[in-house]
Amino acid sequence: MNKRMVTYILGILLLVESGLMVLPVIVAYMYNEKIIFSFLITIGILLVSGLLLTFKKPENKTIYSRDGFFIVSLGWIVLSLFGALPFTLSGEIPNYVDALFETVSGFTTTGASALTDVEALSKSALFWRSFTHWVGGMGVLVFIMAVVPLARGGGNLHLMRAESPGPDVGKLVPKSKSTARILYGIYLGMTIVEIILLKLGGMSFFESVTLSFGTAGTGGFGVLNTSIGSYSVYCQGVITIFMILFGVNFNMYFFLLCGKIRDIFKNEELRAYLGIMFSSIIIITINIHNMFDSIFMAFHHSAFQVASVMTTTGYSTTDFDKWPELSRAIMIIVMCVGGCAGSTGGGFKVSRVLILLKSAKKELKKLSHPRSVNVITLDGKRISDEVLRGTTVYFTIYIIIMIGSFLLVSIDKMDITTNMTAVIATLNNIGPGLGKVGPTGNFSEYTMFSKIVFILNMLLGRLELFPMLLMFMPNINAKKNKIKNS
Amino acid sequence: MNKRMVTYILGILLLVESGLMVLPVIVAYMYNEKIIFSFLITIGILLVSGLLLTFKKPENKTIYSRDGFFIVSLGWIVLSLFGALPFTLSGEIPNYVDALFETVSGFTTTGASALTDVEALSKSALFWRSFTHWVGGMGVLVFIMAVVPLARGGGNLHLMRAESPGPDVGKLVPKSKSTARILYGIYLGMTIVEIILLKLGGMSFFESVTLSFGTAGTGGFGVLNTSIGSYSVYCQGVITIFMILFGVNFNMYFFLLCGKIRDIFKNEELRAYLGIMFSSIIIITINIHNMFDSIFMAFHHSAFQVASVMTTTGYSTTDFDKWPELSRAIMIIVMCVGGCAGSTGGGFKVSRVLILLKSAKKELKKLSHPRSVNVITLDGKRISDEVLRGTTVYFTIYIIIMIGSFLLVSIDKMDITTNMTAVIATLNNIGPGLGKVGPTGNFSEYTMFSKIVFILNMLLGRLELFPMLLMFMPNINAKKNKIKNS
Repeated sequence: MNKRMVTYILGILLLVESGLMVLPVIVAYMYNEKIIFSFLITIGILLVSGLLLTFKKPENKTIYSRDGFFIVSLGWIVLSLFGALPFTLSGEIPNYVDALFETVSGFTTTGASALTDVEALSKSALFWRSFTHWVGGMGVLVFIMAVVPLARGGGNLHLMRAESPGPDVGKLVPKSKSTARILYGIYLGMTIVEIILLKLGGMSFFESVTLSFGTAGTGGFGVLNTSIGSYSVYCQGVITIFMILFGVNFNMYFFLLCGKIRDIFKNEELRAYLGIMFSSIIIITINIHNMFDSIFMAFHHSAFQVASVMTTTGYSTTDFDKWPELSRAIMIIVMCVGGCAGSTGGGFKVSRVLILLKSAKKELKKLSHPRSVNVITLDGKRISDEVLRGTTVYFTIYIIIMIGSFLLVSIDKMDITTNMTAVIATLNNIGPGLGKVGPTGNFSEYTMFSKIVFILNMLLGRLELFPMLLMFMPNINAKKNKIKNS
Repeated sequence: MNKRMVTYILGILLLVESGLMVLPVIVAYMYNEKIIFSFLITIGILLVSGLLLTFKKPENKTIYSRDGFFIVSLGWIVLSLFGALPFTLSGEIPNYVDALFETVSGFTTTGASALTDVEALSKSALFWRSFTHWVGGMGVLVFIMAVVPLARGGGNLHLMRAESPGPDVGKLVPKSKSTARILYGIYLGMTIVEIILLKLGGMSFFESVTLSFGTAGTGGFGVLNTSIGSYSVYCQGVITIFMILFGVNFNMYFFLLCGKIRDIFKNEELRAYLGIMFSSIIIITINIHNMFDSIFMAFHHSAFQVASVMTTTGYSTTDFDKWPELSRAIMIIVMCVGGCAGSTGGGFKVSRVLILLKSAKKELKKLSHPRSVNVITLDGKRISDEVLRGTTVYFTIYIIIMIGSFLLVSIDKMDITTNMTAVIATLNNIGPGLGKVGPTGNFSEYTMFSKIVFILNMLLGRLELFPMLLMFMPNINAKKNKIKNS
């Protein structure tokens, strides 16, 4: 492992975080809030530690595949540990574990809260909470890459692979830096359009910005205790559409910009994503239509809630925990499916579901016709055995972590539905589950132990299991496997 | 497909079932029960249809791999359809779907009941119910194979593979017929020992026999509404031990008979099976100790319940639905793990869990050390890529069926815990779940539609998914893939 390079990049990460924290300082200044000192103190700590770590530039800028995983997982942990400081220093969230839960929930775009009263927070704390969604959605290392070159050659790709979601991360253009810039450009552009549309709908500028951050990162932190419930139908509709848009693979928008419309229509994941989304919306609309005044409102709320949990955003306009069993069951399932690969959405990802289904079908065919040769394709391209094996193993580990976490949080005295959906909601970076962690509930009743389990789940989910797990694997034969990425 | 041979073997199956039904006729005669006529009528129907189907012996006795799957799945369906007749003809279970549910639950060794009052059934109906467990446990085609040679050469192995549980079914001895005889010999011997031990504990002969059938097949049908709750601690202890024994791969008993003790100790699946079993028992004992008078009784009930659900038997001595959340969570997990491959127990099977865990570990290693070569072994033998791929695909399909069934039965207005554990309990052939289908509950409140979903789940679970699924696959290129098994 190139330790120098690891500490150097971590140092840059801290400096960047100190820069990001200038925004809530501005908000705190505007609203004249006391928490400004806590932000300034944290910025000071970040600057000092960041400068110490980056004082000496490493001569060898090569990073290995394993280093990429290590930097990303350690980076996200460090980012959250420092990001939680202002909440506790200001006393707004006195318990540091709660503050960490909130910050990890922010950066991982989960949106689960351990707070019973969100409205008690200061404006700048709310802003910082939502801003972590936006930064975490596209990835902080991808952000840095868009600005400064970090590693030599393939090293940047290792970082991008470790941070970006999906079974098979590729580059849009030959250079990692340009890819990062294009992605952040699209991301920023779409966020701005949403802010404008919400502002036009009569929302305050503060709400437009924070809620757009939450939508863009598919995070889900609101600024009111009722989440999105008290806004107009127009604003809710805008958010519904943007949630769906941010759950789409960003490559599609790149294709759109390049005029490659056919590539978009050919995309199997997009078709499956929209197919699952709209069939769920329609079934639930029928199932809940007599709970609302009109079929339109049933459709409106069904669409909002399904889009919210499937893209793993986690906003809500109504309490879907009170819906009939069939609708609740569908919600649990779309929670796990998640968004598209290469989107800001979490979950298992639609493309992984497709790969699993196709490989199951292939195996069944093989069993009945042992001599037949079947190749699995996605978007007309052959799925490599490596990606295929990686996906099935991902699925296995995903279920193992789900079961293990379920067991650990069952030590608390909550019911099965709450425990199970709390695990699903954190591992898939959704936010709310059912029962006590439903749209009107929160994670405050869990013990510190369970909260730490949830914190780990959120990080595991956002970084897609492997980087975090590899951190804990013994580094055997490290020397033997050093492969230079030049 | 060799259609002649398929119908011929189905005919034999019907004749064998008519023979099996002679036993409940004897019971009905002894207890002077009216249901005797319903059994006799069914025997008549079975004889006539069986003779018609076997009238002409097929000249070509070759069966193909696909035929094996087809015969087994169709055979089990036909067996259940006829086996349910006496219940409805006699009026003891008026609704035929309920009778079919009970019979499929019997043959698949599930033990789930749609009856609210088991004690209202006649003795011979109870006997038939329990006897189906015994027949279904080791497999009816394996039974036939032990008596008459069915197909030529490798054809018998195809049947055995399709009916026997586990990721990689082998033969104990070169001949399928001898393997079948050895298995049934061990099975019968152990059942007789249990009958004797229960009789010595003061149980009536009728109860000793029926409950031993339920233990041997890891079925779980009792003859009292309280399941096993009202018997002595000695009898409960005997059943605990035999449940654990019947969840072990029968190869181990064959090794024992051959004096290959070292092969038993070396067996990784057995060690994992006992490890999971005893650690669950101990954690639950600690978790529930203040619900019972003494730590011994807590251990006793913990051991009985864990052994019952992990071997997928489904007997109960206490209502584990009332246990604390941690214990309930553990119960749900051991429900899914199931028994060993090659045992009469259902579930996902311990060896499959081992293979999945090992392949996940291997993939993580590969990710951190791309050049390392890792081979997965079980009991010192290399796991072939085919078995590995088969296992991961099995897991995928298993979860897909679970999710699909959960969705379908959610149309009924039961709660999530009930629906989820009802699906787990039927797909894994356990019997009781939690909530309304808990140890003191039953499946009677579900609609006919859900009951049919559960019937399919029980069959899918017992035959380990593939045979049933292949029945519904289009037979493309059938001619191309005909491989003679000579």
